[in-house]
Amino acid sequence: MLRPLGDRIIIELVEVEEKTAFGIVLPDSAKEKPQEGNVIAVGTGFLTDSGTTVPLNVKEGDRVIYSQYAGTEVKYEGKEYLILRESDILAIIG
Amino acid sequence: MLRPLGDRIIIELVEVEEKTAFGIVLPDSAKEKPQEGNVIAVGTGFLTDSGTTVPLNVKEGDRVIYSQYAGTEVKYEGKEYLILRESDILAIIG
Amino acid sequence: MLRPLGDRIIIELVEVEEKTAFGIVLPDSAKEKPQEGNVIAVGTGFLTDSGTTVPLNVKEGDRVIYSQYAGTEVKYEGKEYLILRESDILAIIG
Amino acid sequence: MLRPLGDRIIIELVEVEEKTAFGIVLPDSAKEKPQEGNVIAVGTGFLTDSGTTVPLNVKEGDRVIYSQYAGTEVKYEGKEYLILRESDILAIIG
Amino acid sequence: MLRPLGDRIIIELVEVEEKTAFGIVLPDSAKEKPQEGNVIAVGTGFLTDSGTTVPLNVKEGDRVIYSQYAGTEVKYEGKEYLILRESDILAIIG
Amino acid sequence: MLRPLGDRIIIELVEVEEKTAFGIVLPDSAKEKPQEGNVIAVGTGFLTDSGTTVPLNVKEGDRVIYSQYAGTEVKYEGKEYLILRESDILAIIG
Amino acid sequence: MLRPLGDRIIIELVEVEEKTAFGIVLPDSAKEKPQEGNVIAVGTGFLTDSGTTVPLNVKEGDRVIYSQYAGTEVKYEGKEYLILRESDILAIIG
Repeated sequence: MLRPLGDRIIIELVEVEEKTAFGIVLPDSAKEKPQEGNVIAVGTGFLTDSGTTVPLNVKEGDRVIYSQYAGTEVKYEGKEYLILRESDILAIIG
Repeated sequence: MLRPLGDRIIIELVEVEEKTAFGIVLPDSAKEKPQEGNVIAVGTGFLTDSGTTVPLNVKEGDRVIYSQYAGTEVKYEGKEYLILRESDILAIIG
Repeated sequence: MLRPLGDRIIIELVEVEEKTAFGIVLPDSAKEKPQEGNVIAVGTGFLTDSGTTVPLNVKEGDRVIYSQYAGTEVKYEGKEYLILRESDILAIIG
Repeated sequence: MLRPLGDRIIIELVEVEEKTAFGIVLPDSAKEKPQEGNVIAVGTGFLTDSGTTVPLNVKEGDRVIYSQYAGTEVKYEGKEYLILRESDILAIIG
Repeated sequence: MLRPLGDRIIIELVEVEEKTAFGIVLPDSAKEKPQEGNVIAVGTGFLTDSGTTVPLNVKEGDRVIYSQYAGTEVKYEGKEYLILRESDILAIIG
Repeated sequence: MLRPLGDRIIIELVEVEEKTAFGIVLPDSAKEKPQEGNVIAVGTGFLTDSGTTVPLNVKEGDRVIYSQYAGTEVKYEGKEYLILRESDILAIIG
Repeated sequence: MLRPLGDRIIIELVEVEEKTAFGIVLPDSAKEKPQEGNVIAVGTGFLTDSGTTVPLNVKEGDRVIYSQYAGTEVKYEGKEYLILRESDILAIIG
């Protein structure tokens, strides 16, 4: 299990099937990097300048859209995850 | 549905018909990027350094002018949106 | 009507007639960009780090001098405006 | 009249006559930019992060030394002034 | 013994054996730098802007994932350690 | 008299005679810039973000070591001074 | 005597004898810059944004490891010292 620190969030990347205008499914190399993912773990909160911790708005199970170049990709037990800060999450879906 | 986080705002871009001085409607490629949009969702507020949340001034339904290079474009259920921070909103129209 | 947000201010540019040392009125392309304008709308105030809003010092109707490269030019209903932050205003005239 | 905003200060530049080691008065182009000026107006004070205003230490009539590349030169009613922040003032003379 | 200061953490690097898709163990020069380590000492806490000290979340014995280019490598009594700030720790494993 | 503002300090430069390993006194052009000086005036204190003024630790008469490229050199009544911030003072001698 | 200001610390550099894998002692030019030193003086503390002074954790006599490119080297009464901020100290030894 991975436990993110502070305002960090761990995301499992979601492969979004994408069709062109003509209905052709694009192979992986031709698609732009997906910006959607499922939150699998969240940190304990954001530490403010005054030393208090503010709980995060995102929670385990949320499906989110995030900034394309945000975060760090890590590999753990054969799977790839993205660890980013909550401020890199643009919106929750649904 | 997309729910923006914190001080983020989701905007649906508005195509502004633009005529030249001679009354000719410009095709899309010749126009400069529109800076107007309709707010379709707003976050819960701006988190200050001291850990308090200040509600946003912009609300759902507002028509706004925003900084030309601000925000991130995302595609969701076939439509394109712009997600930006309230500080990138220059003015509310009307 | 345009309503600026936070510490933003909307200015209508003022064409300052300028003569050379020899009394010749310069055509527009030969003049340097004017730095004077009339304030036509002001935001609700400056949001501090601690989350309080401080009212602006500049008010509607003020004629101001501003930093030459500050702000964003926007076109609204055929007229051009400059939207900038109060901190880009150098001085009030009169 | 020009009224500077916040922690800004308006200075009238002072031409300092300067002689070389051999007693020759240098023409304007050969002198380095003067760093002295007379304060003709001061703003209402410095706005801190917590939203309080701290009065300035410099006052109208002070003769000051300032950082060489600080501030913005503006022309008003035919005279040239320098508008800069109090933090660009190095020292008060006398 | 090494005692890290403030929000710093000392990590003993862990060599992660890595196999390619074909089961071949890669020699050291062909592997990417490991991002896992064991915490062997932690500082007294993070000093906030207001002067209070917030205890760290990471503790001695934790196995952590950290940002690839974070920290400073030091050699002490023949062993190599990495000293980094807690904010460079991405997640705790387990 | 020069009165420095805020956390600024005025220093009179001290020429330190320097000998090479062979006892030869170096001419001025061959020496590195001295980093020692005598404090001749100090400002009223450091203005914090919260708007309070903290008195300086350095006082008139102190002999100090300062960062080599810090501050601004000014000429006043024929003498050269260095005006720098207290944070550029490294240590007090004696 | 040198008295460092604020959060500054004065360190006397320690020459660490270093042997290669084959037991040969390296001459000075071939060694990497040592990162160890003995603290000979500490400042009165770290001044926070709110204007309070937090005492330092490092004290006179401590042997410390510091960031390789931190601080300023000064020469005083024929000896060389390094003056750096406490935040550049990575760990205390022992």
